[in-house]
Amino acid sequence: MHIVVLAGGIGGARFLTGVRAYARSTGAEVTAVVNVGDDVTMHGLRICPDLDSVMYTLSGAADPERGWGRVGETWAVKDELAAYGAEPSWFGLGDKDIATHLVRSQMLNAGYPLSAVTEALCQRWEPGVRLLPATDDRFETHVVVEIDGAEKAIHFQEWWVRHRGEVPTKRFVFVGADTAKPAAGVLEALATADVVLVAPSNPVVSVGPILAVPGLRAALAGGPAAVVGVSPIIGGSPVRGMADKCLAVLGVPCTAAAVGALYGARSTGGVLDGWLVDSGDAGASVPGVAVAAVPLWMTDEQATAEMVRAAIDLV
Amino acid sequence: MHIVVLAGGIGGARFLTGVRAYARSTGAEVTAVVNVGDDVTMHGLRICPDLDSVMYTLSGAADPERGWGRVGETWAVKDELAAYGAEPSWFGLGDKDIATHLVRSQMLNAGYPLSAVTEALCQRWEPGVRLLPATDDRFETHVVVEIDGAEKAIHFQEWWVRHRGEVPTKRFVFVGADTAKPAAGVLEALATADVVLVAPSNPVVSVGPILAVPGLRAALAGGPAAVVGVSPIIGGSPVRGMADKCLAVLGVPCTAAAVGALYGARSTGGVLDGWLVDSGDAGASVPGVAVAAVPLWMTDEQATAEMVRAAIDLV
Repeated sequence: MHIVVLAGGIGGARFLTGVRAYARSTGAEVTAVVNVGDDVTMHGLRICPDLDSVMYTLSGAADPERGWGRVGETWAVKDELAAYGAEPSWFGLGDKDIATHLVRSQMLNAGYPLSAVTEALCQRWEPGVRLLPATDDRFETHVVVEIDGAEKAIHFQEWWVRHRGEVPTKRFVFVGADTAKPAAGVLEALATADVVLVAPSNPVVSVGPILAVPGLRAALAGGPAAVVGVSPIIGGSPVRGMADKCLAVLGVPCTAAAVGALYGARSTGGVLDGWLVDSGDAGASVPGVAVAAVPLWMTDEQATAEMVRAAIDLV
Repeated sequence: MHIVVLAGGIGGARFLTGVRAYARSTGAEVTAVVNVGDDVTMHGLRICPDLDSVMYTLSGAADPERGWGRVGETWAVKDELAAYGAEPSWFGLGDKDIATHLVRSQMLNAGYPLSAVTEALCQRWEPGVRLLPATDDRFETHVVVEIDGAEKAIHFQEWWVRHRGEVPTKRFVFVGADTAKPAAGVLEALATADVVLVAPSNPVVSVGPILAVPGLRAALAGGPAAVVGVSPIIGGSPVRGMADKCLAVLGVPCTAAAVGALYGARSTGGVLDGWLVDSGDAGASVPGVAVAAVPLWMTDEQATAEMVRAAIDLV
């Protein structure tokens, strides 16, 4: 059995620990197609926050308290960059993390595609699932905001980390979405998948950018696998992160049903065959989509594996 | 009064603390023209060991025990790079130091010449003397060695740091020396100098590469300033470093007189008007060059300033 997961950063990473546990108990193989819209170049380093969150989390190297970056991290380089007045100063680059970015940047500059770089990095981390970037091409989520009365586009990281989403926001723009192609291995993974799971990641800025890669949505729609999503919204609030702020920009209510409807039914040009919501949201319905309700709190790996089992049992 | 100093890394840095002390007591202005032959790109970062040694030392930020890099340095990035198996593993990049290389690399990649980058870095460090790279062009010292019976050229850092000079060595090659030009400001500094001091740096791989930049030797020869060198050899041994090994490659004896002769008299196409040797080497002579002997141990800033006074008094 081959399970493909569309995943963003922290929520996707935690979900993947459950998918991996489920896969280990059933002998399944797992491929994660990870959002690259958050990727950004800072201080000359190419940073892939979602790929790194997944890689570190699956390897037990992530900081569980902070939710991103490495456990036991130190900040000498960051302090020094600040002493030089190097911008941006609002983005935290840890020392251990920087080594990852140095290795990645050097490989990218040498001409390797991000998928090959990710594979090389994973030789150290052995995450136990295959990690693929959604695309090897330049693809970044930018945000059109209004600052001091003027409309301007800023990188998603600036919106998220610097402004905490607390700035009048017009829309999200996926830069590169017109010409990007799915990364090496992505279409093959979808073509051989038995089931595709949409992780409970931010639907607008984590899963949205994956689906915006040309060809990817069509591969889902026409692929052999049933597609089951797991709601990132429980009882009207995001499990974590700022999905509420992102949904508001799109004018979509912050409910499990509304996010299910945003993805839409595969039978009518959307993405989903099944939609898993939290027990507290039982009764939510999405036209054309099978909905089931189970506890969705990813309290530990076993609870998360049970969610995965329920999602797969749904189709 | 304008003092120009030709300097390498650690020895040059320490000498410059004395020049700065002398200049402060006399109201002189100091420009250091620093070797870039040691410069190297590692892990995608452009590293300028001699410029950094001078910058850190003059700012009190250098590690006095190790002799290079930052005091209070940490090594998280280095350990992580090693965990990735990233090469080279034999070159130590400290965390604080890496911030310097990140800022520098990003400016260089943006198109700024090394002289402008150095000026920008010095805005933080305020070394109290003007630092100029010998050239803004690519210029690296490589070493032709014999390894496993085969002749090959390796970067100077690989020869120095990895092999500690303990490998059959044929010759030094200054890559880029055919087309390099003096960095912005260098010829102007030499044209307005009242005296040029050659620091007690390694004559072969620190001062040699500076003099190998086309136009620089001619600017010294035809310039208005007297040129006084300070011997890096005391009693037949280098004050520090591996000048003995480097001189042996050239077939030059490791003595104060021989190094003076290697530089040669300005009146006969060489570099020097004066040559300062250690008291213990009194009696050493260099044809066509005024020689004086004083204590040359740079035990502290004051002792070093006295050396500088003696050098300047020589001409």
